[in-house]
Amino acid sequence: MKNIMDKLTSLCKRRGFIFPSSDIYGGINACWDYGPMGTLLKNNIKAQWLSTMTRLRADVVPLDAAILMSPKVWEASGHISEFTDPLVDCRECKTRFRADDLDFDPSDPKTPCPKCGKLGTFTEPRMFNLMFKTFMGPLEDATSVVYLRPETAQGIYVNFENVRISSRKKLPFGIAQIGKAFRNEITPGNFIFRTREFEQMEMQFFIRPEEDQKWFDFWKQDRMNWYLSLGIDPKRLRFHEHGPNELAHYAKAAFDIEYEFGFGSDPWHELEGIHNRTDFDLKRHQECSGKKQEYFDEETRERYLPYIIETSAGCDRTLLTTLINGYREEEIKGSLRVFLGFHPKLAPIKAAIFPLVKKDGMPEIAEKIEANLRPHFDILYDAGGSIGRRYARQDEIGTPFCITVDGQTIEDQTVTIRHRDTLEQERCGIDFLRQRLAELIEGS
Amino acid sequence: MKNIMDKLTSLCKRRGFIFPSSDIYGGINACWDYGPMGTLLKNNIKAQWLSTMTRLRADVVPLDAAILMSPKVWEASGHISEFTDPLVDCRECKTRFRADDLDFDPSDPKTPCPKCGKLGTFTEPRMFNLMFKTFMGPLEDATSVVYLRPETAQGIYVNFENVRISSRKKLPFGIAQIGKAFRNEITPGNFIFRTREFEQMEMQFFIRPEEDQKWFDFWKQDRMNWYLSLGIDPKRLRFHEHGPNELAHYAKAAFDIEYEFGFGSDPWHELEGIHNRTDFDLKRHQECSGKKQEYFDEETRERYLPYIIETSAGCDRTLLTTLINGYREEEIKGSLRVFLGFHPKLAPIKAAIFPLVKKDGMPEIAEKIEANLRPHFDILYDAGGSIGRRYARQDEIGTPFCITVDGQTIEDQTVTIRHRDTLEQERCGIDFLRQRLAELIEGS
Repeated sequence: MKNIMDKLTSLCKRRGFIFPSSDIYGGINACWDYGPMGTLLKNNIKAQWLSTMTRLRADVVPLDAAILMSPKVWEASGHISEFTDPLVDCRECKTRFRADDLDFDPSDPKTPCPKCGKLGTFTEPRMFNLMFKTFMGPLEDATSVVYLRPETAQGIYVNFENVRISSRKKLPFGIAQIGKAFRNEITPGNFIFRTREFEQMEMQFFIRPEEDQKWFDFWKQDRMNWYLSLGIDPKRLRFHEHGPNELAHYAKAAFDIEYEFGFGSDPWHELEGIHNRTDFDLKRHQECSGKKQEYFDEETRERYLPYIIETSAGCDRTLLTTLINGYREEEIKGSLRVFLGFHPKLAPIKAAIFPLVKKDGMPEIAEKIEANLRPHFDILYDAGGSIGRRYARQDEIGTPFCITVDGQTIEDQTVTIRHRDTLEQERCGIDFLRQRLAELIEGS
Repeated sequence: MKNIMDKLTSLCKRRGFIFPSSDIYGGINACWDYGPMGTLLKNNIKAQWLSTMTRLRADVVPLDAAILMSPKVWEASGHISEFTDPLVDCRECKTRFRADDLDFDPSDPKTPCPKCGKLGTFTEPRMFNLMFKTFMGPLEDATSVVYLRPETAQGIYVNFENVRISSRKKLPFGIAQIGKAFRNEITPGNFIFRTREFEQMEMQFFIRPEEDQKWFDFWKQDRMNWYLSLGIDPKRLRFHEHGPNELAHYAKAAFDIEYEFGFGSDPWHELEGIHNRTDFDLKRHQECSGKKQEYFDEETRERYLPYIIETSAGCDRTLLTTLINGYREEEIKGSLRVFLGFHPKLAPIKAAIFPLVKKDGMPEIAEKIEANLRPHFDILYDAGGSIGRRYARQDEIGTPFCITVDGQTIEDQTVTIRHRDTLEQERCGIDFLRQRLAELIEGS
């Protein structure tokens, strides 16, 4: 598996999916930039999520809250007091360790520091807050501290009333948001799996308290179905229920959707969390802000705090999943074929257009096809090198369909469409290409 | 004008375009959250920009770089030394002022502090850096300082080689990016015009040095055309050329596209900047990183640093422009009609669907229409209140088309489509609705 992650990291840089951030300066720990292919792939994932979660649902509306929020939000949410990891320092060499990562007891005077080797040099564990803090305005003091949000969810909770009133929504309804969040992780890693800057896709569904089990079950299944609809291998997806000791303080029930990423001693890791947060969040914000968050239910004539079912997905983790899920190596006639088997809906480039050779009018026809398709699909035109090398390049970026203009095109105005996964080739009239491509992408 | 900004701020909150961030906690200075309508509008603006700038152009590719970058980037770019405002403090009351905003000389001993009234209490001006800083990793010291990027452009420059090689691009080509940037402005304001957290839409076009004037002229006009394509009033758009005293240290030539926003002593303000940055950026990064940024031109057999033509637009400012540009008040039969005349491509909701009354099978037909259109358009269904009130609500969110199921629908399977701007009504067969809507949106 280490092997596949290494191969993917290399392929991602070579083909423009993901570069180490500030690469020419030696990078910056666990920050990554999405290149042209990665940006298209990520945008497609976000578009699929938004479409499934809001456009196709009359009962969920989108939101885009700011990253910088009032620090009072993080007091109310508990992040200032609770969102911490325990750290110990070596008094000798000043190296800092995450206490719950150590496989020894740092309070034992016979324990050597893994860095400098001195014995019994560790401080008592102290709690380290994972929120990035900065100062807003011209003064750098306690009154001007603000935090980079560690989750997008709170931006939804504090806007519950503003959204409900302006959208004229009745329960049950949801608010969906995609946005950056930041956590000053002590041990980031595994490529884009755990990074300090990441993008969340969160939806908070506000409901009558007594309907919590019904909606929890609904969203749990609905979210699993989403990954399946992206072509993720069902054998590598599973639910993990949080036991009583795992449950966060705000949660009555929680399931993770896990994917078998493959790295680590346990190869399964969280891809998305579905949480029954009860009325914890709105109650806290009501108490701390003094602003009523209760909902008047016209049907039952009751006033109550809605419960919240949360679906919290990582955009970068979903992208990593599509990479691992799509990575294929095949031996064909003694040579290795590598391709990314993305679902066509997600593929950064839907089709590449090739003139077989740079003569006999083929480039002109291919360019005309390019111009006709470009307004409707993300496409590439490539006339460079042998047709085999061009196929290989498209395989590595996961382009599902390659369109070639060849000798026969001059005669009968048809081209070949080569299918990435099956290597099957079909001929299609130039005039039907747009429709055929749309069918192939939609129908897949 | 103050009046229109007040009316817009109020309408934006009431209808779910823009809320003050952390509103229930009294807000946080100059941070704003986009509500459901604002999010859709902003997404449409971003999609139009991406489509115009990359999908439709074979010579521009997208990028999505991280907000947190190596501090070495900001040393090289000059932001650590140059990106500053002069501040003075009152020694008495500790209030801080931006020196170039004061209408008096703070070094004059007879000058009273505007806050506490004491005379001659001001410190010497000192330079205040506008970058937000934070600490990455468990230590809070000088070695762990990182900055929130104050512009997305540098993320493009440091990825020039990675993108060029992985995309196999030859000059001229561009890299386009949408993303958040942060500036700790001393005097933010005018609603979403100047905020501390904002979203940029930047494109950097890499060219042969001798072609700089040609491409500068091209992009200048191309970007102006974009705003015109969004229906922005040409009379309120103009170019402003930077004189020798205005030019940034990196620029050989610069034009702003200005919009007549209306606020301030001069009502025209920058909407977008088009800059000839020469080879300043790549040269600096080459010097500071020690990594060659030169381009080998296969045609001329020369090796040189490309010049860069930059187009730098503000997403939030474009959104504010569409609001001001679209805001209309009309008196109709003695009552005031308020509507947002968005270009249909940008309108958050393309069509609303109404059953005229909640009986005679009308809701059932309207719901069926809703289900048919929803996969293809952002739409709303509304059965609440008089038809007049429903129209008024859609007008205020700028919905270009309202579809009503009425008595005649039952007889002939047609509905009315009411046009927002002209109030014209046409009848359309239910089976042709999807096609007709697409025509109306595309053709507008």
